[in-house]
Amino acid sequence: MATAIVLLKTDRRKVTDTAERILEIPSVSEVYSISGRHDLMVIIKCETVDMIEYVITDALLKVEGVLDSETMFAFRSYEKREAGRAVDVD
Amino acid sequence: MATAIVLLKTDRRKVTDTAERILEIPSVSEVYSISGRHDLMVIIKCETVDMIEYVITDALLKVEGVLDSETMFAFRSYEKREAGRAVDVD
Amino acid sequence: MATAIVLLKTDRRKVTDTAERILEIPSVSEVYSISGRHDLMVIIKCETVDMIEYVITDALLKVEGVLDSETMFAFRSYEKREAGRAVDVD
Amino acid sequence: MATAIVLLKTDRRKVTDTAERILEIPSVSEVYSISGRHDLMVIIKCETVDMIEYVITDALLKVEGVLDSETMFAFRSYEKREAGRAVDVD
Amino acid sequence: MATAIVLLKTDRRKVTDTAERILEIPSVSEVYSISGRHDLMVIIKCETVDMIEYVITDALLKVEGVLDSETMFAFRSYEKREAGRAVDVD
Amino acid sequence: MATAIVLLKTDRRKVTDTAERILEIPSVSEVYSISGRHDLMVIIKCETVDMIEYVITDALLKVEGVLDSETMFAFRSYEKREAGRAVDVD
Amino acid sequence: MATAIVLLKTDRRKVTDTAERILEIPSVSEVYSISGRHDLMVIIKCETVDMIEYVITDALLKVEGVLDSETMFAFRSYEKREAGRAVDVD
Amino acid sequence: MATAIVLLKTDRRKVTDTAERILEIPSVSEVYSISGRHDLMVIIKCETVDMIEYVITDALLKVEGVLDSETMFAFRSYEKREAGRAVDVD
Amino acid sequence: MATAIVLLKTDRRKVTDTAERILEIPSVSEVYSISGRHDLMVIIKCETVDMIEYVITDALLKVEGVLDSETMFAFRSYEKREAGRAVDVD
Amino acid sequence: MATAIVLLKTDRRKVTDTAERILEIPSVSEVYSISGRHDLMVIIKCETVDMIEYVITDALLKVEGVLDSETMFAFRSYEKREAGRAVDVD
Repeated sequence: MATAIVLLKTDRRKVTDTAERILEIPSVSEVYSISGRHDLMVIIKCETVDMIEYVITDALLKVEGVLDSETMFAFRSYEKREAGRAVDVD
Repeated sequence: MATAIVLLKTDRRKVTDTAERILEIPSVSEVYSISGRHDLMVIIKCETVDMIEYVITDALLKVEGVLDSETMFAFRSYEKREAGRAVDVD
Repeated sequence: MATAIVLLKTDRRKVTDTAERILEIPSVSEVYSISGRHDLMVIIKCETVDMIEYVITDALLKVEGVLDSETMFAFRSYEKREAGRAVDVD
Repeated sequence: MATAIVLLKTDRRKVTDTAERILEIPSVSEVYSISGRHDLMVIIKCETVDMIEYVITDALLKVEGVLDSETMFAFRSYEKREAGRAVDVD
Repeated sequence: MATAIVLLKTDRRKVTDTAERILEIPSVSEVYSISGRHDLMVIIKCETVDMIEYVITDALLKVEGVLDSETMFAFRSYEKREAGRAVDVD
Repeated sequence: MATAIVLLKTDRRKVTDTAERILEIPSVSEVYSISGRHDLMVIIKCETVDMIEYVITDALLKVEGVLDSETMFAFRSYEKREAGRAVDVD
Repeated sequence: MATAIVLLKTDRRKVTDTAERILEIPSVSEVYSISGRHDLMVIIKCETVDMIEYVITDALLKVEGVLDSETMFAFRSYEKREAGRAVDVD
Repeated sequence: MATAIVLLKTDRRKVTDTAERILEIPSVSEVYSISGRHDLMVIIKCETVDMIEYVITDALLKVEGVLDSETMFAFRSYEKREAGRAVDVD
Repeated sequence: MATAIVLLKTDRRKVTDTAERILEIPSVSEVYSISGRHDLMVIIKCETVDMIEYVITDALLKVEGVLDSETMFAFRSYEKREAGRAVDVD
Repeated sequence: MATAIVLLKTDRRKVTDTAERILEIPSVSEVYSISGRHDLMVIIKCETVDMIEYVITDALLKVEGVLDSETMFAFRSYEKREAGRAVDVD
């Protein structure tokens, strides 16, 4: 499982609309309206890095209302899967 | 449920150790080793904002190996919990 | 009570008008014309974080004259008004 | 009444202690633990600009735990508390 | 006496014209064409902070040719009034 | 007459002392304690550019308490005090 | 052999098209879609520095979809040409 | 094949030594001494993202002489070397 | 002899044309196409600072194709060409 | 002839000494004490790019007093000294 985190600056009059359109993109697992210089933070999870690239380039960045982006790639995920703090992630 | 995202710069010789220590903090749901100027991205989820503040100030920032931090607060979470397509997001 | 602080860059010919329109938004408690790279600083206080998000996204950022924003969230407020040590502020 | 807003980067292991020491400085009306690159935001209100300068230079910046600062001066305050239009804030 | 220093980015084809128009604003005591990322530096001196705010917001930022601004407020002036190096300023 | 403007970051515990030592340097005409990321702004006026360089390099930057500096050179001064157009400033 | 690395910000709706057009420029050896604030990273290898300049200025920067660029020049290449880890590069 | 690009700031007295030590790390395919704010640019190619993370965190960042890093991940590589369209590069 | 160095961002489709037009300005001694965030670096040498200001403001910044500028002033030139120690440069 | 321009931040108490030591490095053609965030600007001219790299890495950055550097490479020099169009510069 590959994960990317995208910080977005959106048209200031369309933050909510843009968030909702992004949420409909498959592979987008979470959308947050955040503090700071950006408006939204999007978490994308895909089976492969190629799919991540496709989702960002061909879907996310083409959503109306998106003005600028800064992308972070998760080289490794240390997610704690609840319960007995099972390690061994993705 | 309140969510904060913390970007951390760590001692470059202790990235993995620092990540593992952070993962043991209750309320820390995910730790990623990320691309960019920071080394780690930590997602914290708590019942209240007060608890978020406590986790960041009294636990996260005191972990050995942490050098600098930039915090984002999620004013709103658009997690995809609805309908059929519902993906199991913590 | 949740608090957010928003730094705004406004249309340089409409700083005063923009400030006055922002002041009419309920939940906006203070508007300052400030030094630095931004023109205005707005303090928003609401009962819940959800309301803060609504006020920023659906009211503040849609005010005519607002060009860019940077938001800070107050995880904790140490306001002096409480208890015995209360000092007479403003 | 003159107002200054100071953003502080503090020793990451002493955020709470530093905030509490700052809160004891007369003229400091509010201290927030905030999101972003800084740790604390301090609001100072004095009768004169001279006093503001004295409070920042001779008290605030000398508090143990303060590492770096960025100061904003409020040229004008549009606080809602006055006159008829008064809205019930905090 | 209150002092503010404003760094301005101007339309690159109108630096001189913009400087001359700014110079006609009462309370503007000096205008410099400077090195760095900005084009002009303006020093404003007024009896009160309120007047400073008015001069910046209602006169300076409305001058044609001004594109962007960064303002600094002088909390204290240590001006040396020549002669016997008399201290005791404003 | 050549003019340079120097923004200084000083040891946060010695802002006033540093300002006073700087004020004693001949050719330093004004020292301000300012808002923003810097602590002091110094205006230097000399007969020649060579003297400006000497004052900055051999006097100003060697004052105890100075930590970092950013220098601006005034290519041209539009000061109002001269000639006929003289407006009554400060 | 001279090498330059160019980071590009492209029209967010045309990242893939722009990458493909750039790939057709002779001397462009690699194009990556990258994380961070830029969208693409381009590696150019030419016999001479003059040719590098020509490729960047007359071909790369004129490709439709390119919005902004930041260029790095490789003063020295330590490429490892596989095999017996042969050093001695170009 | 996964690719990461790492920009490094090194101890200014050990740029060459640091570059040579980095070149000995398996999976490091190229090391450049570059213009700009960084000293070295390192290209890492591995079979999997996990290995990339391991190489950066457990080898590269632990090399003596490395002071700071900024990492970019290549979501997609458009390298020309393959198949038919192959153009004669370097 | 006064010297100024100007870094220019130009219209990315007109770098060469812009450079050639700038080269025709008297007092411009060198124009370089450079790496980094800017496109051109221009060195201006004049008898007086006033002339430098005139060349930048009335000639250089008005050249078509120039989009943004950052100027550095040389307070002192340590050029090797003089006296005995003269080394054979360029 | 290859040209590099290096901006240096030096120990603020040793600007002149550092400049003079740098001036003694062969291939360094000019050293300027400059305005802005840096203290010195050094121009290096060599027959080859390899020599440039050697001068920067093995001589310039090892000079005592140098704290930080930012390097620009001149891909092309439009110096006026050549051929017919020669204008009388400095």
